[in-house]
Amino acid sequence: MTEPIIRNSSLFKTIGIVGVGLLGGSIAAAARKRKLAETILGAGRNPSRMRAAQHSGLLDRGTTNIAETSAQSDLVIVCTPVNHIAHFIRTVARNSRPGTIITDVGSTKQHICEELYGTLPEGVTFVASHPLAGSEKTGFEFSDPELFQNRSCVVTPVDSLPQEAVNKVIQFWEALGMSVLKTSPQKHDQILAETSHLPHVVSSALASTLAAENRKFTSTGFRDTTRIAAGDPSLWVDILLNNRESIVSSIDKYTQSLQSLRNAIDNNDENELRLLLQDGKRNHDALNSSQ
Amino acid sequence: MTEPIIRNSSLFKTIGIVGVGLLGGSIAAAARKRKLAETILGAGRNPSRMRAAQHSGLLDRGTTNIAETSAQSDLVIVCTPVNHIAHFIRTVARNSRPGTIITDVGSTKQHICEELYGTLPEGVTFVASHPLAGSEKTGFEFSDPELFQNRSCVVTPVDSLPQEAVNKVIQFWEALGMSVLKTSPQKHDQILAETSHLPHVVSSALASTLAAENRKFTSTGFRDTTRIAAGDPSLWVDILLNNRESIVSSIDKYTQSLQSLRNAIDNNDENELRLLLQDGKRNHDALNSSQ
Repeated sequence: MTEPIIRNSSLFKTIGIVGVGLLGGSIAAAARKRKLAETILGAGRNPSRMRAAQHSGLLDRGTTNIAETSAQSDLVIVCTPVNHIAHFIRTVARNSRPGTIITDVGSTKQHICEELYGTLPEGVTFVASHPLAGSEKTGFEFSDPELFQNRSCVVTPVDSLPQEAVNKVIQFWEALGMSVLKTSPQKHDQILAETSHLPHVVSSALASTLAAENRKFTSTGFRDTTRIAAGDPSLWVDILLNNRESIVSSIDKYTQSLQSLRNAIDNNDENELRLLLQDGKRNHDALNSSQ
Repeated sequence: MTEPIIRNSSLFKTIGIVGVGLLGGSIAAAARKRKLAETILGAGRNPSRMRAAQHSGLLDRGTTNIAETSAQSDLVIVCTPVNHIAHFIRTVARNSRPGTIITDVGSTKQHICEELYGTLPEGVTFVASHPLAGSEKTGFEFSDPELFQNRSCVVTPVDSLPQEAVNKVIQFWEALGMSVLKTSPQKHDQILAETSHLPHVVSSALASTLAAENRKFTSTGFRDTTRIAAGDPSLWVDILLNNRESIVSSIDKYTQSLQSLRNAIDNNDENELRLLLQDGKRNHDALNSSQ
């Protein structure tokens, strides 16, 4: 996996990744492939896993020493489960040199940003990010250097952040092949409740509804609609409880759409049912044409 | 597409397909590829479309004359929208020679079987089928000879049907690469309400919930979960209204699962939420391992 580095094209001299799972590993692989850094460091809990990630060539050095990784990096990307992100960003910030930029990949942004913006040591800047890319798979072994290509990344800065740091974080995601969308942390969480957290709940509820004896009567439709229910329950507990109010409100809005369809079927109302299905199809088709 | 026919391996001398869209066309293509008939005829409403299907090599003859197609076929497969299936099976049966077997591909079975079993002319046998394969695409141009490979097909006979005809229909689907599941028409509709019709409603409601301005914040999760919402609304109106009672009952069961998740999130109940998400994941994972 190690390729020759062209020094001049490097956005950062050294990138540090805290939490080297599928996402962190894919960032390492993508940054390596696109020559965005001279050196890629990784820090994680498990020494043998970190040695394996280094041995595979994904990292130039894998360690459990987050302080050392922080001290040597110009950009640190925290890729831990969402509940631990704020804690690790504080640890990174405490151990960083002035000028270090920190970002993350958390699926919720409001709590993290409220806790951290304006509170980190002078000279260290945290710019919150959420790349809209992932997989139900877990572990750096599934790292994919193309995971971010042609996907969107939401960056949620506030006006008080140094513009240069914000721009460098945006450039980094763009260099991985992403289109960057900027919004506020609050707005991010409201939007993602609808576009990401709600689908997970919908998909999980559908998987739970299926009686075991009916499994053999499923086809690709059921499988596609429940694919994301395979996501790690622990990660999703954290995400869903981090954005409760917006998600409950999205579920309620969705339940109304569902009840409209239910009632049209129950009332044998062909015209109403057709209008509702056409609306769903139109919204789905617009999704594909907007991509 | 025309390949040499090995006469001895033919299950039927002549197969007739009534309704040559994506499913009918794919049956023609699959039967041709597997040499299941010497001749494949098709009948449809639109003369120029039928000429085009013949010209493409999908059919040996494409016509609007359903009586002629029926009179010349040993097996007729009715692939029209579900609301027209019973009508066309009657038309086929009236025009068939004794010994002709008729089947269909309808997504609901109870109404069709109640209307037809025991009512067709002496010597003509209808055996109801539902191959669990399809696509959001429409039109014979998207015909796929591998559409049925490794998929399931539900056949819903009753005891009064001639066993030989039932066996020949089962052999036909098996020859297309399918595993055949036998159940009653009533049971089929109850099961498919859960495994196929419910996912369509769930997916359509989710697509409808998305605000237009949030489209660019969707990722593969939202797209996969709403893929089947792209299905033809007219076809789905017919399917959903043909199986109202079972579908409404499945939607209500699903709504309970959804509300459990909603309440666990709303109550910040981490343990309950974890259990519910684990249940969804377990059910999803069992689906893949049972395939």
